[in-house]
Amino acid sequence: MSIQLNETHDPALRSWVASANTPDTDFPIQNLPFCLFRRAGRNAVFGGGVAIGDQIVSLAALGRALEDADPLARSAAVLGARSNLNALMDAGPAAWSALRLALSRLLRSDAAPRPEILVPQAEAEFAVPAQIGDYTDFYTSIHHATAVGKLFRPDNPLLPNYKWVPIGYHGRASTIGVSGQTFHRPRGQTRGATEAEPVFGPSKRLDYELEVGIFVGGGNARGEPIEAADAERHVFGLCLLNDWSARDLQAWEYQPLGPFLSKNFATTISPWIVTLEALAPYRAAWQRDAADPQPLPYLDYPSLRDSGGFDIELEVLLQTAAMRRDGIAPARISLSNFRHSYWTVAQLLAHHTVNGCALQAGDLLGSGTQSGPQPEEAGSLLEMTAGGKQPLTLPNGEQRIFLEDGDTIEMRGWTKAGRHPRIGFGAVAGTVLPAR
Amino acid sequence: MSIQLNETHDPALRSWVASANTPDTDFPIQNLPFCLFRRAGRNAVFGGGVAIGDQIVSLAALGRALEDADPLARSAAVLGARSNLNALMDAGPAAWSALRLALSRLLRSDAAPRPEILVPQAEAEFAVPAQIGDYTDFYTSIHHATAVGKLFRPDNPLLPNYKWVPIGYHGRASTIGVSGQTFHRPRGQTRGATEAEPVFGPSKRLDYELEVGIFVGGGNARGEPIEAADAERHVFGLCLLNDWSARDLQAWEYQPLGPFLSKNFATTISPWIVTLEALAPYRAAWQRDAADPQPLPYLDYPSLRDSGGFDIELEVLLQTAAMRRDGIAPARISLSNFRHSYWTVAQLLAHHTVNGCALQAGDLLGSGTQSGPQPEEAGSLLEMTAGGKQPLTLPNGEQRIFLEDGDTIEMRGWTKAGRHPRIGFGAVAGTVLPAR
Repeated sequence: MSIQLNETHDPALRSWVASANTPDTDFPIQNLPFCLFRRAGRNAVFGGGVAIGDQIVSLAALGRALEDADPLARSAAVLGARSNLNALMDAGPAAWSALRLALSRLLRSDAAPRPEILVPQAEAEFAVPAQIGDYTDFYTSIHHATAVGKLFRPDNPLLPNYKWVPIGYHGRASTIGVSGQTFHRPRGQTRGATEAEPVFGPSKRLDYELEVGIFVGGGNARGEPIEAADAERHVFGLCLLNDWSARDLQAWEYQPLGPFLSKNFATTISPWIVTLEALAPYRAAWQRDAADPQPLPYLDYPSLRDSGGFDIELEVLLQTAAMRRDGIAPARISLSNFRHSYWTVAQLLAHHTVNGCALQAGDLLGSGTQSGPQPEEAGSLLEMTAGGKQPLTLPNGEQRIFLEDGDTIEMRGWTKAGRHPRIGFGAVAGTVLPAR
Repeated sequence: MSIQLNETHDPALRSWVASANTPDTDFPIQNLPFCLFRRAGRNAVFGGGVAIGDQIVSLAALGRALEDADPLARSAAVLGARSNLNALMDAGPAAWSALRLALSRLLRSDAAPRPEILVPQAEAEFAVPAQIGDYTDFYTSIHHATAVGKLFRPDNPLLPNYKWVPIGYHGRASTIGVSGQTFHRPRGQTRGATEAEPVFGPSKRLDYELEVGIFVGGGNARGEPIEAADAERHVFGLCLLNDWSARDLQAWEYQPLGPFLSKNFATTISPWIVTLEALAPYRAAWQRDAADPQPLPYLDYPSLRDSGGFDIELEVLLQTAAMRRDGIAPARISLSNFRHSYWTVAQLLAHHTVNGCALQAGDLLGSGTQSGPQPEEAGSLLEMTAGGKQPLTLPNGEQRIFLEDGDTIEMRGWTKAGRHPRIGFGAVAGTVLPAR
């Protein structure tokens, strides 16, 4: 399956919301990503919204504005106005697409301005957009897997299953927060390479991981796998995800059953979910070395090689407490791209369900750390500092091998393609607090 | 913390429900386990219930019967009558205990019989009792870890972290079902030891795992660990759990991030949750070799050594399709005991939250396979057949190394102690259907 371009993708479209027409906005009228929000400082309930420039279209405020729209769009807006986006996610691609078309027409510069449907983003509070039933984290960057494998297993960096199996594991849903999340540095057991016994204390090797989040739309019944060719119809959209990781806890605990306390203390996602329809003009060829094995049939599908991937730039910025105090802007420490992913989003869903596992609307999948082939495309400090051996120097002269208390990590994502405008994912930021 | 015995534990208590007074019932008046049920064959909604003999007390039917009870018991009954037990689980130990006392008094042989509050278990359908936010599976049997380790890593069976870290990993909540669950044999990638490439097909090494499930009661806020000494106040109760496992999928996929598709196609739990208060007379000393390390301080607490464990017999029965056809009863293939667990329930909660991870009411923890030290106490076929090398012979002459289509695995659990009566967990059964 690949989504056909339609009138909502027309690069010439402009909006009566002036801030949506500036070249550097993440949210032109061609994007229209979803969020869950409320007006800040009021005891309002959360409801769905759609970004346009520096404003949010409140789905709860749309009623009259959609009077002449497709009934499917009207009912999708009603579902989206609920206290989370699960029902809208469950409604499926026809409903999502109808709502997108109706919103595109409503917001175009030749339509009547309706400021009453807007809330300024500056006045909004965001929340995790869905009740996440299950969260799964994958490991789709071969560059990350190889670099990290070298640190944990120098003689055996890339395991034999990697080029066959989209490796994944279940993560923690209860500690997923939205951009702005803070957390106390986790404490736990660690053991030095030359020590006989572990010690207990705050993590000394705290890291981030640059990932793309995938929100599942309509799920599948237990026992009924999703076919790879049909899998993108089950994806509501993509967001940014920071999989905070305590490397010293991870090294001691991860065998034989995988990461646990080293990951489950916090995971932060961006408030905005960019739909696959919005991303249709920005697809990328699937990247794989000619010598690599072909995917097994259940992981193959017609559009895989031409356009299985997504060309999304992914940026990591770091601002320390001292930089914040001195008014120094967050510094870019990495720039990668989702097109480097060894497995596609459709392959992840097909693999996840091929054994009969049930996905549900609102489930979240993480792509795994999106490191690219070059050192400056590393998606974690573990890789960037060669396992803590090569410090990173920041604009004010501070150095980092791992994160210090007070550090804020911000991730941004965007894409552009030919005559199609730049569309963005906004940002996901999170800050490390001292251990308790 | 340890729960004091009170009038509800009095071994002399009898009930006006005659079936509760037979010596072999799982559900005498000293037990009173919770479930979620409805009358079968009607479009009734699910609500909470409590077992007494072969009957269920419907919490929704209690209203007038609790008129003279403690208001805390009355409000707990109202919470328990909802469409899942999450609110009752969240209400905390004082509420659970008040409801137990009120039910005990209501059901005693010297109270007025109230048949209108009862539904026969034979007329009930059960459901997973809570909306499970997150499911975590542990690995608390050192006998299982050693036996399985020998098969996967002959030179290194027990990893260095085992005696320090209560090893656990996140599992799949969406595929947890209640006793009676069936599932199609999972398909997936496997690779033979001597093969260069994997193949795709139905699992040939399908197994069960004998586990105890732990339902979390009141949770903790993110960033605020649960102390080991206080941890049992956060446990609503225990059930039986079968962690179905596809060993051939597991061997190929599990490195480096742990089991995924080999486990997440189905997990089956018993309908009954036995509360920690009911289990107070049946505690066991914590078992650990004198040469083993002492637990780190966050895993230690006053009652650990005397009564940290639970003396719960755990039985596995197998009935093949041929046995069912020929009227041959399920055959016992294993008898183990939860007292062999290397880590206690309180230690699991303390460990899970020490990094700040948030538990929520309704979360489920699995104990991991409860194998004992003797071969006949093995909690999985993988161990019992030495990795598929020594077939098991059944009463009708059939042999098994792993599960075949049509096999039903049933697990039972019970305990008794001195003058305290036998109380039981009922059963969890599940049946393998052919691959699709």
